[in-house]
Amino acid sequence: MRRFTFFLVAVATMAGLVTLIAPAPGHADGQSTPPFVTDIPRGYREWQWISSAHEAGNLNSLGAVLGNDVAIKAFRAGKLPFPDGTIIAALHYRYVQSDENNKVFGQAQSFVPGAATNIQFMVKDSTKYAATGGWGFGHFADGKPGDAAFMKSCFPCHEKAGATDLVFTHYAP
Amino acid sequence: MRRFTFFLVAVATMAGLVTLIAPAPGHADGQSTPPFVTDIPRGYREWQWISSAHEAGNLNSLGAVLGNDVAIKAFRAGKLPFPDGTIIAALHYRYVQSDENNKVFGQAQSFVPGAATNIQFMVKDSTKYAATGGWGFGHFADGKPGDAAFMKSCFPCHEKAGATDLVFTHYAP
Repeated sequence: MRRFTFFLVAVATMAGLVTLIAPAPGHADGQSTPPFVTDIPRGYREWQWISSAHEAGNLNSLGAVLGNDVAIKAFRAGKLPFPDGTIIAALHYRYVQSDENNKVFGQAQSFVPGAATNIQFMVKDSTKYAATGGWGFGHFADGKPGDAAFMKSCFPCHEKAGATDLVFTHYAP
Repeated sequence: MRRFTFFLVAVATMAGLVTLIAPAPGHADGQSTPPFVTDIPRGYREWQWISSAHEAGNLNSLGAVLGNDVAIKAFRAGKLPFPDGTIIAALHYRYVQSDENNKVFGQAQSFVPGAATNIQFMVKDSTKYAATGGWGFGHFADGKPGDAAFMKSCFPCHEKAGATDLVFTHYAP
């Protein structure tokens, strides 16, 4: 019984410590960092396609932008700002030549997704993410979220797309 | 009344002529041309994303490949050959620079879909399309199917992707 009591006290103490130590969700960097997306939204790979994009230069990326049902509905209706519940996913891969396609074409013309690099999300919640234009930003490489310092860079860049509610991607019909 | 009778006779004659002249569906070029896809499969824009691709050179294309549920299931399972009922759609657009994105990035690095050019389909029906490896090929520009002469070029090229059941595109995870 004594052992069991010790165990309970230890657990309670640990729980108290964790509560004290753990930062508030989305405030990993303290009060100065607004919340960002720390969990990969479920089922994103099954969402509908919004558009594709190639980013040259250092990014050297080819990928696709997908959207959940709320996002797709808003894109198709041309509705701005996007409603709460909108989630947009950008799936990024290395931009690589397809040797097998090029053999068939007889010239180097075919570029396809290579290794996956990262997945980024924009989650619209005008209350939770009020400090960043109503959008929560997420970045995941190998399933792990970007750190707070990195995540600080998302909003200032997306803010420049103010005319389209901070969203760069247009719907490809 | 005489005029109306003449009109009816004329319509009947025209209809008869059309019936005589019109080739059997999918045999627009006579017996020598195997059938191809002449109707745009319904709902394709809502299908899931398989991959993106950029074709440089004369095609100068950026787009996406989508698949119906049968296609997606087979791609994810790595199942070859693709089962009957598989439909794969390739949505093609001009490969253009995004001036608005490049302004934000401060350099010319962003390429996105421009004007839509064509949509191509592969429909698996091992009976109907037995002469072309079990695949019916479709090509639509402005909603109109490619003519028989053009459609003849699909199979000989796709045949070179024999190891993947005539499908060039790989699933992007």
